[in-house]
Amino acid sequence: MPELYQELINLSNSAMYPFHMPGHKRNLESTPMKGAFRCDITEIDNFDNLHDENGIILEAEERANRIYGADKTFFLVNGSTSGVLSAVSAAVPEGGRILAARGSHRSLYHAIYLRHISVKYLPYKINAVYQMPEPYTKEDIANALDDSIDAVFITSPTYDGRCSDVRGIAEVCHERGIPLIVDAAHGAHFGFEGSNKTREGYVYTKLPESAVKQGADIVIHSVHKTLPSMTQTALLHIKGNLIDVSRVKRFLRIYQTSSPSYVLMSSIDLCMKEMEENGKAFVDRLLEFRNRIQIETRQCRNLRVLSEDTIDDVAKVAIYVKNATMTGQRLYDILREEYNLQLEMAGEKYALAIISGWDKEKGITRLIEAIIDIDKKDEWWASAISADYKEKDDTKVTIYDLPEAMMSVNAAMDAEKSLVPIKEATNHIAGEFINLYPPGIPVVVPGEIISEKIIEEISGYLSKGMNVQGITEGKEFICVKQK
Amino acid sequence: MPELYQELINLSNSAMYPFHMPGHKRNLESTPMKGAFRCDITEIDNFDNLHDENGIILEAEERANRIYGADKTFFLVNGSTSGVLSAVSAAVPEGGRILAARGSHRSLYHAIYLRHISVKYLPYKINAVYQMPEPYTKEDIANALDDSIDAVFITSPTYDGRCSDVRGIAEVCHERGIPLIVDAAHGAHFGFEGSNKTREGYVYTKLPESAVKQGADIVIHSVHKTLPSMTQTALLHIKGNLIDVSRVKRFLRIYQTSSPSYVLMSSIDLCMKEMEENGKAFVDRLLEFRNRIQIETRQCRNLRVLSEDTIDDVAKVAIYVKNATMTGQRLYDILREEYNLQLEMAGEKYALAIISGWDKEKGITRLIEAIIDIDKKDEWWASAISADYKEKDDTKVTIYDLPEAMMSVNAAMDAEKSLVPIKEATNHIAGEFINLYPPGIPVVVPGEIISEKIIEEISGYLSKGMNVQGITEGKEFICVKQK
Repeated sequence: MPELYQELINLSNSAMYPFHMPGHKRNLESTPMKGAFRCDITEIDNFDNLHDENGIILEAEERANRIYGADKTFFLVNGSTSGVLSAVSAAVPEGGRILAARGSHRSLYHAIYLRHISVKYLPYKINAVYQMPEPYTKEDIANALDDSIDAVFITSPTYDGRCSDVRGIAEVCHERGIPLIVDAAHGAHFGFEGSNKTREGYVYTKLPESAVKQGADIVIHSVHKTLPSMTQTALLHIKGNLIDVSRVKRFLRIYQTSSPSYVLMSSIDLCMKEMEENGKAFVDRLLEFRNRIQIETRQCRNLRVLSEDTIDDVAKVAIYVKNATMTGQRLYDILREEYNLQLEMAGEKYALAIISGWDKEKGITRLIEAIIDIDKKDEWWASAISADYKEKDDTKVTIYDLPEAMMSVNAAMDAEKSLVPIKEATNHIAGEFINLYPPGIPVVVPGEIISEKIIEEISGYLSKGMNVQGITEGKEFICVKQK
Repeated sequence: MPELYQELINLSNSAMYPFHMPGHKRNLESTPMKGAFRCDITEIDNFDNLHDENGIILEAEERANRIYGADKTFFLVNGSTSGVLSAVSAAVPEGGRILAARGSHRSLYHAIYLRHISVKYLPYKINAVYQMPEPYTKEDIANALDDSIDAVFITSPTYDGRCSDVRGIAEVCHERGIPLIVDAAHGAHFGFEGSNKTREGYVYTKLPESAVKQGADIVIHSVHKTLPSMTQTALLHIKGNLIDVSRVKRFLRIYQTSSPSYVLMSSIDLCMKEMEENGKAFVDRLLEFRNRIQIETRQCRNLRVLSEDTIDDVAKVAIYVKNATMTGQRLYDILREEYNLQLEMAGEKYALAIISGWDKEKGITRLIEAIIDIDKKDEWWASAISADYKEKDDTKVTIYDLPEAMMSVNAAMDAEKSLVPIKEATNHIAGEFINLYPPGIPVVVPGEIISEKIIEEISGYLSKGMNVQGITEGKEFICVKQK
């Protein structure tokens, strides 16, 4: 089977001279990126066309398809963002209705805006101890589904590596003939198997199942997040007959550049080939890295690496700060500044590291040693954990009330706006998304009413110096202009 | 000033270990692309965020801004496509009206579809001799403008390197307070100056002026097409006060991935730095290459490289087939198959090469020699050009009638469809774009009525084996279902 990357290298080694785009003419010798420039071409003869593929790009997509077991797989060069926009635009008619989790990626909200979609939210559940979004059960979806819904949209795994019951949810959706879209941007490594060698004492022994196999109708995978592909690359998989493939294709053409990068596309193909040929070793390394972290940090008193009871995804290492005298952000900063370890993100109660099969043994060791070291250094902790410390009940879930929507997202975003000082904003209608970042879940969505309670919540974040997005520098809310 | 690329290399050389995305962990040593993987990170501390830039990405954008002289410049990682979508979505209210050239890039039509925009077309002018889209004059726009228009959209330079009178058109638009959007995807090299050394005998002595300087309100530049940046990279420039920058920013966030590639972004910055430091030499080389081609092929009888009378852009080498016994496609194929020269595209009457300051002397020589060689080889030509051959009047322009629109683009694209055999399609309403490729200009746009004349035109293309896009494999039209 021809390989996109190898064909690009062959072209570059051939006598064929490029009187076509790009302007660098594969002739940049002065940077370490020259290898990538060598593979950077436009759609010339024999190199197919991403938007109307029937040659080498189609074959590469079919390889990915074979690996994941979908009916159809598309390469994306504008990230999972373009996948979510296309999936929602294709599955829901303009002006239709979607059932979705509040904590969905902003591309879902953008699709809602662009396509005049109305949204019904699933209960907004946050783990009370870890302050981490909860995954969804079959019942959550069954209870919320009604005949007005055109499609269901969930994120699984979450950023933190928690998985919803995709199989059960797909069943519930399919009983009503409603398609299920799974934003599995963080789950491209799911479903790969290791070499199944005995793993005595291991906490994690395998990777979760892929949402494609679990029956979702559309699954979106970022390939760069957890697998060895370049940033901004993704896959969109379609399975079953609830989705019109040609509509998905139409929207992929709309939301993606007509000059797709062969560097990005060949990076996806290289990644798929790597996983096809050496996926077992990748999984073995990933499991071993994760279990080392899990097992070797067990003795910590102030910190705890969340285990399989909470985190389904082997690749997500959430370091929970048991001793509440330190925040997750502080832990993140210490790891970065004192140990030269750059983590992915910080929550209020934990810091999150992402590991993959491409980590280095040495890096994993440094993380383990840093966790143990920080845990032991009394100087980092404002006070010791008391002798009678009892772990909190980490199955406790808070369900947040959501603000009332007075206008559609579309109408509010396109309405005339005025700036209203926070303290005067009660009962105004939000004209912009307001998020606490992280985790980036909207506190208020355009069109929703700003209540007294929300103002208190946001004022609280601001007084703690937390990063609130969607308000002006002068700390005003962007509101729909009152007539 | 810090440079994005250099900072990425510094990071890669530092002791900082990545417990974040991407999953390859900058640890891919096995491919020539490893240099690019080294620079491929996610948004970590100190590396800013494309969608909310206030650090190193903003500084890089400001460098580009300084070079082109706009009020505001944005980096794009989803190509000029995302620039056009964002510009039109920002400049025209939903449901508004745009004045545009028929031969606009498909991203314009996609914006029209997504945002329920209605379109008034400029006269559809094709050069009668070269079968090449004509640029626009100030009068073309003045005659078509009316008070229903929210924005004007033109493409200049065209794919073939022809420039409209952007300065005059901007004046006409601004008299009415209407913003002008210029799709200058192929004009990122415009406005750069050479070293101004004497260029005796040169046909081309400078590059055309940039649309930014000529007064356009939004200009979109592909950086990869004519400058040394990676495919899929582009810039969006805003000037003046007719455009709401925050609205543009909103749509750039919508239409572009939330995981933008640092490889692509640093490639833009590297390119800007290169042009800032060595732009003069780039322009000198480009001019010299172009003039060599122009001058050294002058003696050809069957072929003619179109000159500055027709082609404004130094980078576009349109090789016109004077001797009508050969098509542009045949010339393109011969250059590719017999001479290993891959051109950009073939029109009916010409083949188009793109050159840049990064071409190699040797490559230019090969092109010149090939043109001369093909021109001389009688075996390629079905008959000789007659002794009394007279050049055709190449100022002659054909203005095509456009089909009547019965429905909006949006309504037609989202309507229920049926397949209608070509011969039975008279008076049906098109449900898809039908293009002849190249040039890719729609023969029919969704919502337009399919006339007898159009059926004859398309049947003619098909019988010649030309590439007609938008019909099924069974040669049926995709039409709006008749009730």
